[in-house]
Amino acid sequence: MRVDILTCQPELLASPLGHSIVKRAQEKGLVEVHLHQLRDRAINKHGQIDDYVFGGGAGMVLRVEPIAAWLDELRAQRPYEAIIYLTPDGEVLRQPLANRLSLLGNIILLCGHYKGVDQRIRDEYVTHEISLGDYVLSGGELAAAVLVDAVVRLLPGVLGNEESALSDSFQDDLLAPPVYTRPAEWRGRAVPEILLSGNTPRIEEWRHEQALARTQVRRPDLLQ
Amino acid sequence: MRVDILTCQPELLASPLGHSIVKRAQEKGLVEVHLHQLRDRAINKHGQIDDYVFGGGAGMVLRVEPIAAWLDELRAQRPYEAIIYLTPDGEVLRQPLANRLSLLGNIILLCGHYKGVDQRIRDEYVTHEISLGDYVLSGGELAAAVLVDAVVRLLPGVLGNEESALSDSFQDDLLAPPVYTRPAEWRGRAVPEILLSGNTPRIEEWRHEQALARTQVRRPDLLQ
Repeated sequence: MRVDILTCQPELLASPLGHSIVKRAQEKGLVEVHLHQLRDRAINKHGQIDDYVFGGGAGMVLRVEPIAAWLDELRAQRPYEAIIYLTPDGEVLRQPLANRLSLLGNIILLCGHYKGVDQRIRDEYVTHEISLGDYVLSGGELAAAVLVDAVVRLLPGVLGNEESALSDSFQDDLLAPPVYTRPAEWRGRAVPEILLSGNTPRIEEWRHEQALARTQVRRPDLLQ
Repeated sequence: MRVDILTCQPELLASPLGHSIVKRAQEKGLVEVHLHQLRDRAINKHGQIDDYVFGGGAGMVLRVEPIAAWLDELRAQRPYEAIIYLTPDGEVLRQPLANRLSLLGNIILLCGHYKGVDQRIRDEYVTHEISLGDYVLSGGELAAAVLVDAVVRLLPGVLGNEESALSDSFQDDLLAPPVYTRPAEWRGRAVPEILLSGNTPRIEEWRHEQALARTQVRRPDLLQ
C-alpha cells in the first residue's frame, strides 16, 4: 500500500508516522507513506496557499492551485484508487470502512486546514470524504494520522499473531470484554475466578456474555 | 487547563503536541500538557508494564501497578476533575462532549495499548471512558492527541477571531456550507454568483440553505 498525504503541516505528522505500528509497517515494506507540503506548490514566492473566503466571514480557505498541482503530479506518476479528503462533513469512519480501505493499493489523503479547501477541489478530484467523528479539529493532519493507523494495522503482516486485530472491538459488532492480568489480587480486587479456571470453553462463553452485556449497556445501537 | 497524559509511547505525541494550536495555547499559558511514561513506574528493572491476559488468548494487558502509581502521585499533587481512559468501548466523542471537557480544570488522559488496561484500573480510578469513534487504533496516544486538539481549540483565547470555532460544523447541529476562495474562475469552474454579490443577508441565507441541504443528504441523523 502507498499513502500520499497532502498537508500544509507535515511536521504535525512526524511522530505519529515515525513510531510504533506505522514505522514498523514501513520498515517491513508493507506500506509507504509520503508527505507533500502544499507550500511547495504555493501560488507565489511568499508561500501563499490560502485566501479569504468568498462572500465574507471568518476564516481562510485553502486555494485550488497548490492542491491541484500536487494531485496532477501524483496522478501522472501512478494510478490512485482513492483521493480522500478528511473533513468533519464526510462519511463517519467506522471499522468496516477501515477494513475496505486496507484493501486498496495507492491512496491520497488531503488534509484540510483553516475553514477547509475550496469546494472546487472536492468537486473535481475527491473520491471519498471521511470524518473521524462529529467533532472539529484544527486540521486534517491528526485525522490522517488516525486513518493511517487504523488502516495500516489491518494490512497482513503488520501485527504479529499475539496482537491479532480479529479480537478487537467492532470486528464482530460487539465491544471487547474486560481484560485482566497479573497480579490475581490487587488492593482487595480479585480477577473473576473463571479466568483462572483453565476451562477454555467456559472462559470463551464468559467473555462472549461480558462483551454482549457491555455492548447492551453502552452501545445498544451496535446490536440493532 | 492542565492535561496529564499517561502513556507508554510519549514519543508518538511529540509532534501533535509540539506544533500548531496546542503549541500556541501552551505558549500563551492557556494549557499545560504533561506526558508521563508508564515505564518510569515499571514493576521491575526490565521496564515491565504489561503481562499476559488472564484466561488465555492473544494480546498483552497493561498491568495495574504502573498506572496506579502515576495516578496516586498525580492526585496527591492536585485535584483532578476527570480521569479519562481512551478506549473504543467508551462514550463516542462528539462536539458537545468536547465543549463540556473544555470547561474543566485539571484532567488526566490514560492511553491504552495492546489489548488495553487491566479492568481494575477502570473500576478503581477512571471517571470517563471516551472513544474517537467505532474503529480500533494501535493505542490511545492518537486518540489523546485528537481529544487535546478538539478541546484546546475551544479554550477562550486560543483561536483568533478569524478562526472562530462558532462557525464550525456541529456547533449548530449542521454541517458547514461549501466554501470558496479566489480565483473566481478556475478551469471553467466558477464560484456561485451569490458569493460575489456583496449582499450579506442573501449570502447568509444561501449558506444556511446549503448547510441544511448538505446535512439532509449526508447526515440526516443530525437533524432528528
